[in-house]
Amino acid sequence: MFKKLCIVGVGLIGGSIAIIARDRKLAKTIVGFGRPEDMENLNGAKSCGIIDECYTDIKAAVENADCIIIAVPVSNTESVLRLLQPFWSEEAVYFDVGSTKGDVVIAAKNVFNTVPSNFILAHPIAGGEKNGVPIHNPTSSDPSPVVDFKNKQLIITPQPTTNRDSLEKVKLFWTEIGSLVSVMSTEEHDRILAATSHLPHLVAFAFTNMLGHRDEKEPVFKFAAGGFRDFTRIASSDPTVWTAICEANKTELIPLLEQFKNELTQIQQLLENKNYDALFSLFRYANSARERFLTQKITNQ
Amino acid sequence: MFKKLCIVGVGLIGGSIAIIARDRKLAKTIVGFGRPEDMENLNGAKSCGIIDECYTDIKAAVENADCIIIAVPVSNTESVLRLLQPFWSEEAVYFDVGSTKGDVVIAAKNVFNTVPSNFILAHPIAGGEKNGVPIHNPTSSDPSPVVDFKNKQLIITPQPTTNRDSLEKVKLFWTEIGSLVSVMSTEEHDRILAATSHLPHLVAFAFTNMLGHRDEKEPVFKFAAGGFRDFTRIASSDPTVWTAICEANKTELIPLLEQFKNELTQIQQLLENKNYDALFSLFRYANSARERFLTQKITNQ
Repeated sequence: MFKKLCIVGVGLIGGSIAIIARDRKLAKTIVGFGRPEDMENLNGAKSCGIIDECYTDIKAAVENADCIIIAVPVSNTESVLRLLQPFWSEEAVYFDVGSTKGDVVIAAKNVFNTVPSNFILAHPIAGGEKNGVPIHNPTSSDPSPVVDFKNKQLIITPQPTTNRDSLEKVKLFWTEIGSLVSVMSTEEHDRILAATSHLPHLVAFAFTNMLGHRDEKEPVFKFAAGGFRDFTRIASSDPTVWTAICEANKTELIPLLEQFKNELTQIQQLLENKNYDALFSLFRYANSARERFLTQKITNQ
Repeated sequence: MFKKLCIVGVGLIGGSIAIIARDRKLAKTIVGFGRPEDMENLNGAKSCGIIDECYTDIKAAVENADCIIIAVPVSNTESVLRLLQPFWSEEAVYFDVGSTKGDVVIAAKNVFNTVPSNFILAHPIAGGEKNGVPIHNPTSSDPSPVVDFKNKQLIITPQPTTNRDSLEKVKLFWTEIGSLVSVMSTEEHDRILAATSHLPHLVAFAFTNMLGHRDEKEPVFKFAAGGFRDFTRIASSDPTVWTAICEANKTELIPLLEQFKNELTQIQQLLENKNYDALFSLFRYANSARERFLTQKITNQ
């Protein structure tokens, strides 16, 4: 499909895309670009065949590449676009994988005064709480698994400037990877993801923070079980990545946090007023809503 | 170890105890007691060998039993103790498995004016979001798995009236089941469990409730992924059981909810004030706290 794929940021997502793209024969050559401090990581990815070549020089990295993937924390998108700008090729297609989209539009406009027609904004709804290149890290006792994009949603948010040909290429690429491609507006994406992903991460971080401090005073973790483990799993996510996401999407997150606190206040009042019938109804609704979520996931896959 | 084990409430926990007790040969005979409406369930448990006999008559159920286990939602403890009271035997040992303990003390005092010396308050910190007797349910496409108590904490909260011999018997029983037995005060138990279990359940129910209503207006569940799935898993827990737990432990839960809302407000202010360094520090602390929790679990097991 592509002659040369250049991945800017060979971490959990970038590395997983490289592995699957190679497996599905979506590119003849796959190269990685990183900062000088990423060289050990990049060499590791190269030595186990995830990428064919690695660079810290952007010009060499993107030379003759017909697809460039930006897979860095969202707060770094603008600086990466700035690096790419002098070598921007109309012949190539570019896409990012960021968890927020409004900020990527702003980043592109800051660099190009517009969103380039061949820069597609994409977001694979998949990941995991581990970070770093999957598989190759021999020093880790518990390396990150390859992210499974199969049957997972991949959202593309086209811009008024978007070139249809570039859009179709990126759609096809992700379909070949195995994802289910959805198209929506930037605003819709950021609003929905704030609710389904960003808020729960923030809540899990907040809860684990509170319990962590508590555990320093009396042993509470010792008596925490499987429910706690799953509820807090996403608090093991990368703090750098998630600070950037919360920053990028704070205009959606702040009112949602407010709404969620009101939800908690409502429950608190049910407890205070001993209104257990209403509490039961709320729990039962939540229970059936989650059942609906699970059924939908099974049907989709 | 026991001649006759009588399980009052053969559900997820009661059924799992029966299966493991039989496997470990901890009782010659295991019988189940339930309400008339539980007969189908009880007969199912009998027909697949989880229990030897089932009763809706409490006198027959407890006759010659030397161990009686109360495995019902915590709000039903008092009515079960009232049923047991006329046939209470000094020769037997009794214990419950409730997730809250202060309310069980009150229930016992309401029935007996004291906590009987041979009634041990116990809480296995294990379970799952499914309910019903494990394994046997042939009509369910997705039956509950047997609860794994192995290497899980089992908390006993002795009372001033507690007889040492009964206490040791229950400790031994749970050690044979495979649990790690801890002893603490009723207050300590309810305070710790409010933080590690009851609050996260309440938060997961609240969040899933909010998103469920949202999903009725625009499809958000479609774009929810693995993080959402794990974060909300405990919202699939039994609404009856959890309404009872929240009711029983509301004096601990209400101030904790208040504290958690303050925690969320603090994060909201960091976002509003663009204090991303502090947000990052908080996320990083939560991340390392969860690592501490995971390491501790591995070391324990």
